Amino acid sequence: MLFERHAPDEDCHPGGGAKVIRLGVIGYGYWGPNMVRNFSEVDGCEVVAVSDFRDDRVALAKSRCPGIRTTSDTDELIRDDEIDAVVIASPVSTHFSLSKQALENGKHVLVEKPMTKTASESEELLHLAEEKERILLVDHTFVYTGAVRKIKEIIDSGQLGELYYYDSMRVNLGLLQQDVDVLWDLAVHDIAILKYLLKAEARAVSATGASHVGGGMENVAYLTLFFDDSFIAHLNVNWLAPVKVRKCLVGGDQKMIVYDDLEPSEKIKVYDKGVTFDGSEQARYETRVGYRSGDMWAPQLDRTEALRREARHFIECIERNEEPMTSGREGLSVVKTLEAASMSMRQRGRLVEL
Amino acid sequence: MLFERHAPDEDCHPGGGAKVIRLGVIGYGYWGPNMVRNFSEVDGCEVVAVSDFRDDRVALAKSRCPGIRTTSDTDELIRDDEIDAVVIASPVSTHFSLSKQALENGKHVLVEKPMTKTASESEELLHLAEEKERILLVDHTFVYTGAVRKIKEIIDSGQLGELYYYDSMRVNLGLLQQDVDVLWDLAVHDIAILKYLLKAEARAVSATGASHVGGGMENVAYLTLFFDDSFIAHLNVNWLAPVKVRKCLVGGDQKMIVYDDLEPSEKIKVYDKGVTFDGSEQARYETRVGYRSGDMWAPQLDRTEALRREARHFIECIERNEEPMTSGREGLSVVKTLEAASMSMRQRGRLVEL
Amino acid sequence: MLFERHAPDEDCHPGGGAKVIRLGVIGYGYWGPNMVRNFSEVDGCEVVAVSDFRDDRVALAKSRCPGIRTTSDTDELIRDDEIDAVVIASPVSTHFSLSKQALENGKHVLVEKPMTKTASESEELLHLAEEKERILLVDHTFVYTGAVRKIKEIIDSGQLGELYYYDSMRVNLGLLQQDVDVLWDLAVHDIAILKYLLKAEARAVSATGASHVGGGMENVAYLTLFFDDSFIAHLNVNWLAPVKVRKCLVGGDQKMIVYDDLEPSEKIKVYDKGVTFDGSEQARYETRVGYRSGDMWAPQLDRTEALRREARHFIECIERNEEPMTSGREGLSVVKTLEAASMSMRQRGRLVEL
Amino acid sequence: MLFERHAPDEDCHPGGGAKVIRLGVIGYGYWGPNMVRNFSEVDGCEVVAVSDFRDDRVALAKSRCPGIRTTSDTDELIRDDEIDAVVIASPVSTHFSLSKQALENGKHVLVEKPMTKTASESEELLHLAEEKERILLVDHTFVYTGAVRKIKEIIDSGQLGELYYYDSMRVNLGLLQQDVDVLWDLAVHDIAILKYLLKAEARAVSATGASHVGGGMENVAYLTLFFDDSFIAHLNVNWLAPVKVRKCLVGGDQKMIVYDDLEPSEKIKVYDKGVTFDGSEQARYETRVGYRSGDMWAPQLDRTEALRREARHFIECIERNEEPMTSGREGLSVVKTLEAASMSMRQRGRLVEL
Repeated sequence: MLFERHAPDEDCHPGGGAKVIRLGVIGYGYWGPNMVRNFSEVDGCEVVAVSDFRDDRVALAKSRCPGIRTTSDTDELIRDDEIDAVVIASPVSTHFSLSKQALENGKHVLVEKPMTKTASESEELLHLAEEKERILLVDHTFVYTGAVRKIKEIIDSGQLGELYYYDSMRVNLGLLQQDVDVLWDLAVHDIAILKYLLKAEARAVSATGASHVGGGMENVAYLTLFFDDSFIAHLNVNWLAPVKVRKCLVGGDQKMIVYDDLEPSEKIKVYDKGVTFDGSEQARYETRVGYRSGDMWAPQLDRTEALRREARHFIECIERNEEPMTSGREGLSVVKTLEAASMSMRQRGRLVEL
Repeated sequence: MLFERHAPDEDCHPGGGAKVIRLGVIGYGYWGPNMVRNFSEVDGCEVVAVSDFRDDRVALAKSRCPGIRTTSDTDELIRDDEIDAVVIASPVSTHFSLSKQALENGKHVLVEKPMTKTASESEELLHLAEEKERILLVDHTFVYTGAVRKIKEIIDSGQLGELYYYDSMRVNLGLLQQDVDVLWDLAVHDIAILKYLLKAEARAVSATGASHVGGGMENVAYLTLFFDDSFIAHLNVNWLAPVKVRKCLVGGDQKMIVYDDLEPSEKIKVYDKGVTFDGSEQARYETRVGYRSGDMWAPQLDRTEALRREARHFIECIERNEEPMTSGREGLSVVKTLEAASMSMRQRGRLVEL
Repeated sequence: MLFERHAPDEDCHPGGGAKVIRLGVIGYGYWGPNMVRNFSEVDGCEVVAVSDFRDDRVALAKSRCPGIRTTSDTDELIRDDEIDAVVIASPVSTHFSLSKQALENGKHVLVEKPMTKTASESEELLHLAEEKERILLVDHTFVYTGAVRKIKEIIDSGQLGELYYYDSMRVNLGLLQQDVDVLWDLAVHDIAILKYLLKAEARAVSATGASHVGGGMENVAYLTLFFDDSFIAHLNVNWLAPVKVRKCLVGGDQKMIVYDDLEPSEKIKVYDKGVTFDGSEQARYETRVGYRSGDMWAPQLDRTEALRREARHFIECIERNEEPMTSGREGLSVVKTLEAASMSMRQRGRLVEL
Repeated sequence: MLFERHAPDEDCHPGGGAKVIRLGVIGYGYWGPNMVRNFSEVDGCEVVAVSDFRDDRVALAKSRCPGIRTTSDTDELIRDDEIDAVVIASPVSTHFSLSKQALENGKHVLVEKPMTKTASESEELLHLAEEKERILLVDHTFVYTGAVRKIKEIIDSGQLGELYYYDSMRVNLGLLQQDVDVLWDLAVHDIAILKYLLKAEARAVSATGASHVGGGMENVAYLTLFFDDSFIAHLNVNWLAPVKVRKCLVGGDQKMIVYDDLEPSEKIKVYDKGVTFDGSEQARYETRVGYRSGDMWAPQLDRTEALRREARHFIECIERNEEPMTSGREGLSVVKTLEAASMSMRQRGRLVEL
């Protein structure tokens, strides 16, 4: 068993004297402990408080992190003058009010994805952050992974040629949320990734889906994004799949990428493949096309944990007063796309312009 | 190398005295030789003639099958009184006129998929076959595979419980056709499979897609089929993918299937998995759902070549004057769905009722 | 990213009032923190001290586990009267002296694998534990995994029929040890698993290997174990492989198992496959054999972390004064096999009787 | 189904006027038809006769290849003055006598692997071929694959650095032979590949194995080959495995190769990985080693069928009177290694010098 384990995580350093920015983490459920662990390792900050409205989670935080103040009173945490920034790792429906309160109290905010439940709420937060001159970072975690950053590097280098499509499948069993449907929970990742990878903005969306369990929230959804040119993006998200899949194809006229996030090492494979369309009558009858097939290449990826990089980025943006890569601006744009997709899905695929 | 090879195929038996039904094969391109080879092995029939308008293909057929008459004059083959049935393995655009001519000349017809380029053509053929009392079989090959037949057996046994979704990805590089787009070339398989697996009929369709090469034919397409209840089907087809994928998920509330047609042996995996939706407030906040996870089971499949089984079925339907599993009726229904999907795709996802 | 993470580990509970057995953990390198974490979650015990001779590891332990005493003085820990049991997670060369000292001080001992560097040392510890009436458990972790326990259950049920072979490949890149060679580091796992799975004892061993880096320690090794009957076991271990493989075949005359420890969910696959040997002259010439091929089945496995189960087992054995599943007896037997294998390897495959 | 099929094989062209070398194929069982098919497509030769002592195989050959003479009298074929060369695709036990007879009758010979059942027989054939000035090619098919040729190219370029090991697993279910054991049937491939890849010769061998079915022939075997330096080769062959594996690792100090012959497209993967051994005391205690991990690269392979290339090579060697890549010399060397391995296996791993 010796080699199967990862190095033990370092959970909760109460921090040293050099730390300047003092953080409070709201929500100690699934994602909160990861936030505490990662910010504890980042220079220039210190996690000083954790809140959760559930007593057992507060107790857990207390036992794991003896040096950190724990509370079930989120209000108190948000109003605490000693706290410079808050991390909001609570359910989506609470993102807006907690972020708003925090900004109004002069805190910098890192909020989980999706930013809010409506675009107007996101807009309000965005303006509030500008007005208060606070940093607002939305936790689009994948943008901070070595894999997605490598894909951007490859696209930007022009190797893929003209981009044709982005086709993602993100399915697994379980973890249904009552708070949001599968689009807002899983498709949000790909929408944020697309925003990061592409210069162009999606112009319209067509979505379909179905709800099979629970209170009408879709657990299966399919989303097509249209752009100005023939580039097309498609997302397949599903909470009721028997196997876990995290696979994405990015096609270009020169090369193509297969991105499999579940591969332990070769997550990104670049294929030197393409087609040559021969419009001749003979080709037509024979239904054949020329195609080239060259080498495949799997670049080495930076293995820094995405959340570590994101935490560092948040602290740096605060220190330098710079806009984050995944700022409220990106958060708003993603929420707008999700709103349009939801509207389309309710009308079974009707095109909704963005 | 000894074990890597398949048993040598037996290509072109000129046949023995017991054979009764005399066949002509039209088109000796990609699929035609497989038709010749398979019908040559089926009892009760004899391949007597092969036609192709291309001289080199006629020469190839001649050299491979010295005992079979070869010709570049398809008309002559269709009018030949000695021929009882024709197999039409020519481009889609020729399916209607060749099938019509064959039926008018009293031949039974096996025509490649899709049946025709329009529903009205399919309808005309269907009526003509009934009028002439000839067998009309559409080559929905997958319906004859051990894998798809096993899936139907599992669904019919009720093991999956209530069906939730059918989600298929069928992508690869190359083999673009100018004759039809990717929906008519690849999605046709899944539409035929769905028709075979389900008792219910799709009620509406929403499709999106894009064309990147050649003359405007879509090479990437996404298709959602809606049914009376919450069951949903989704097809992802692509001619420009860097890797070949033939994967399909079938979800039910009791069990779920993963069907991977590229797996050499375990093509069908049945997962005893599902979710239990706990609508409690606690579950809501914790974003957790109960899920059960039991054994997985990969049933042994009948490995008879699908085309062999289909060929035998065609001959038996002729002998017994019975309607084929994939008759003109199924062919027409599939073409209607494709027509609706094309219409939806041209309007970027607009719902088209069936 | 939400679904990619495991639930946060609970690292270092200082424990509650009900805990009776007081533990000290020696060595806070790679495996030690996992020991601390797991014993912290087990009822009936309490981790009270951690030692490591390296100051930085002591500091790390201190920061992570504020409630636990930390020291660089292992002697002091071993002599501490308040401590009932020690966990030895230090290099192999220290196992003997530390275990001996601990037993002499009346402690129960859980020692990492391999138990010691020589069989005579293991024997001495075994006798000492008996004399002192202390529990001695050797950390053959795989024996506590859901996968290996399921394999034993399947073998014991007789489903596989007569056992033919056990064939394991356990290779990866890195983690070379100067302390022991690859046999003592990796093959030890399979030898312990075999001991657990089989009633029979290996009678002889032939091993080969090679050393390519460092000071003469083999980094590649191959080991064959012979038994009284025709059952045969083979282990392939390698520290310089470009990919990580943890795959094992277990063949019987009725069914066969593929055990892939890197599979996220279906680690165990049971194949209903076998051969029928037809000794006829015809079969001889045709080089064909009848073989049957039935369903494949992947049983659901208990996902409890192996080390958690082992920790619980250690505590229970102490409480009930029972011999552990992986006691000093098993530890000694494994070391004897390793000694014989090393002797065989030095003589390039010469058979060494056990 | 359209894209799932391979292009139809072209089985048995009776050939044209330009063909000069006239071939007879002895044995129309498993491999013979592939020989007929491939030589039929090679310029400069013509398959004129096929023999098999079994009437049903003769009948099959007759029906498939109407233009080729078929006979159950192998003697007659061998003595036929019109025949220039014979292909011997019959059981191993017949290789020697048939090859000898053919060479004595002045025929060039292509004989399946392994060349003969003993080294002395191979030696006799080798001398006879030299004496008669005839080409003698042994069918070491893998040497003619795009994959193995690419591995040689990579090794020769020096990219892998100093070679460490070759580790092959070649297992599957079925196709037991009574004629030879699994070493002579499967390990023969790797021994031939090694001979082709390396300049160095193996110096000694240690083999183990077991027989579980039939008349004492081993169906599981493990073979280690030692060389002058620390390079080591290991082969794992098994006829009773539940799954088919054809995987080989080639390790060097600079790069390493994974060769998976069952991968449809990326058969060869080159990993830029290695270790740096840090002999420091700290590293020793921490059991850590530096390792580098760079890109992975899967070169495009020539997809020409190996047997096609081999057939062409045989004809060219005859035309130019050149020694084949896999001549009797290589055949003899492979048989010598197999003989030594068998001797070692009978003595359970005893080292046998070569």
